[in-house]
Amino acid sequence: MIVVQTFLLMFPSVCQGLLRLTGNILRNSAALSSSSATTDVIREAQQEMNKMNILFSQYDNPPLLWSSHEEAQCFIDEKLDAILFDCDGVLYRSPDEIPGAGDCIRRLLDAKKEVFFVTNNAASNRRQLQSKLQKVLGVDGLTEDMMVSSSFSCSEFLRKKFLPSLDLDPTTQKRIHVIGSEGLCEEIRQAGFLVTCGDDSDTSSMSREDLATYTFPEDPIDAVVVGHDINFTFRKLCIGNVLLQRNSQAPLIATNLDSFDLVGNDARHIPGNGCVVKALEYSSGRTAINVGKPSKLLADIVLGDRKIDPSRSMIVGDRLDTDIQFGQSSGMYSALVLTGVTSASQIEMIVKGESEEPMPSIIMPHVGIMA
Amino acid sequence: MIVVQTFLLMFPSVCQGLLRLTGNILRNSAALSSSSATTDVIREAQQEMNKMNILFSQYDNPPLLWSSHEEAQCFIDEKLDAILFDCDGVLYRSPDEIPGAGDCIRRLLDAKKEVFFVTNNAASNRRQLQSKLQKVLGVDGLTEDMMVSSSFSCSEFLRKKFLPSLDLDPTTQKRIHVIGSEGLCEEIRQAGFLVTCGDDSDTSSMSREDLATYTFPEDPIDAVVVGHDINFTFRKLCIGNVLLQRNSQAPLIATNLDSFDLVGNDARHIPGNGCVVKALEYSSGRTAINVGKPSKLLADIVLGDRKIDPSRSMIVGDRLDTDIQFGQSSGMYSALVLTGVTSASQIEMIVKGESEEPMPSIIMPHVGIMA
Repeated sequence: MIVVQTFLLMFPSVCQGLLRLTGNILRNSAALSSSSATTDVIREAQQEMNKMNILFSQYDNPPLLWSSHEEAQCFIDEKLDAILFDCDGVLYRSPDEIPGAGDCIRRLLDAKKEVFFVTNNAASNRRQLQSKLQKVLGVDGLTEDMMVSSSFSCSEFLRKKFLPSLDLDPTTQKRIHVIGSEGLCEEIRQAGFLVTCGDDSDTSSMSREDLATYTFPEDPIDAVVVGHDINFTFRKLCIGNVLLQRNSQAPLIATNLDSFDLVGNDARHIPGNGCVVKALEYSSGRTAINVGKPSKLLADIVLGDRKIDPSRSMIVGDRLDTDIQFGQSSGMYSALVLTGVTSASQIEMIVKGESEEPMPSIIMPHVGIMA
Repeated sequence: MIVVQTFLLMFPSVCQGLLRLTGNILRNSAALSSSSATTDVIREAQQEMNKMNILFSQYDNPPLLWSSHEEAQCFIDEKLDAILFDCDGVLYRSPDEIPGAGDCIRRLLDAKKEVFFVTNNAASNRRQLQSKLQKVLGVDGLTEDMMVSSSFSCSEFLRKKFLPSLDLDPTTQKRIHVIGSEGLCEEIRQAGFLVTCGDDSDTSSMSREDLATYTFPEDPIDAVVVGHDINFTFRKLCIGNVLLQRNSQAPLIATNLDSFDLVGNDARHIPGNGCVVKALEYSSGRTAINVGKPSKLLADIVLGDRKIDPSRSMIVGDRLDTDIQFGQSSGMYSALVLTGVTSASQIEMIVKGESEEPMPSIIMPHVGIMA
């Protein structure tokens, strides 16, 4: 490496290419050492990217198609101040890193770019997300400030909404009812609210007679929040619904409206938080406020508060309906990676006018391209 | 009464009025002896009816407003062959009869009208519904044929759909996965299907890892049915969703799409079956087939199979979105009673163009008017 660096001082432009080549070889060997599952993911992503190249060879005005590090780097250097990353399906496929993801983040931090990790997963709070990313990516220097889980955007939204009357006196404190995880409850509690949660240990049914005589220790509430709750029951739906009925001014807040996610080797569709939100919207007649992607509210929380220009920002994600839509509705560049839920056939449907999902401004096989 | 009947033979038209008067006095005393809760219901319904009379005094082409037995009887005698009744909020408010409901049914059966009891409640099967009505109304001569619970319309729909290939050999029998009550499962089993149900005793959560390793003993299935399930859990949502994913041809069937019902003295909104349907529609991307009110499929099952003319039929119900909509979409008269969930203010909103709910063709305070 010393030889290469000396050579670089003498012939900078040629050597940058050589250095990049050396880096690529090192990164590729890192990729080879990762689990065979993630290697499969990269191979499949590359195959999908080949289909994209064929697809767009026939159309004018295609999105930018990044197949090399150089294409990505040039764009990032010139046009971006901030890069926002979706996590699952982009930086890792639990529990493994997507090869090159850590290198990508390291390079951006070295280049003094603003980096944020924006996830619709409300199950973890910022501290937990930071710890997970640090472990999976092996990158130093990740701070809590960079973590934007939807549990955080939810507590931020609540804080701003109730700010004029925030009060830590428990008798008058604002009360938030949460259908969601303990991580979400904790984040909202830390923002100064009194949180009531469904009792996960009470898995009994809720008959008409049960609801007629329920005494509602949760009442009164100032808002109902729905985060991803793997312990969701009809009982929780009943309680949340009557709480909303009793305070017609209380907003219904969704940490996200995701419809499903993929789990397991055979890509089973696990229902997302949006399903529970839709159930509660239907019974209560309310429309939920979404504080997760693709809501512009989230962009205001991440970018607006820091005075970052959206037009010099980019979201990197694997989902059209959340990540790419988030980019579009917030005026950011939107980059799709093919290591998650979106396939070339879905993009083809947009091209053919058979789908109304948003078209990304950039497509790359995997985030390692940005490394 | 013997004197009255002799008198009737001599002067039939005058005496019919007298007999009606005597009947009314008897009925009113029956009403007085019923519980104070149902007496309150009748008083409130009468107050709402007064508002209706004031409201429609200012408008052309109002619905028929029935305030007396005579108005109802004349219409029924002349124009109707079949009368369909919604049950809860119309014939009873659990556990009490709406005063006059039993008399109403008795009179219609005596007049040889076709009578059906049509409920979106899929928790009970036909036998259970018959037994409940017999007990609450105290009417003899109610037969199973008159009972049209949505569990029955569901099993009828399935029977017709799979009729060409119905097979009782357990190895090739059609398999229906049910998110609903045991009564619903029983009705579908009796129609010749193999039924898999969510295990109510398994109330454990369903994490991503749990779903990734679940072995799906329910698989394969030919349809997924959602009936009202007070033991609904996220686990059941996950299982139903992946079963639909595995058979893209399997229909998703809803016994009804009700959004909520009222329970308790303070009219708490208990979420209806439609909430769970919406959750599963959202995760699976399917659109459910509704076999309950207001679906025309249900009218085909009740009227079509018996060759009854919808234009000489009437549905009596308390809900605009199910009962009255059912009448409209099936070409029947639709009569609203005010002993259930609908108030005069909702009708006023339709009149003023502030609501898109359907306008009934007839409004009466309570079903006792038809007695």
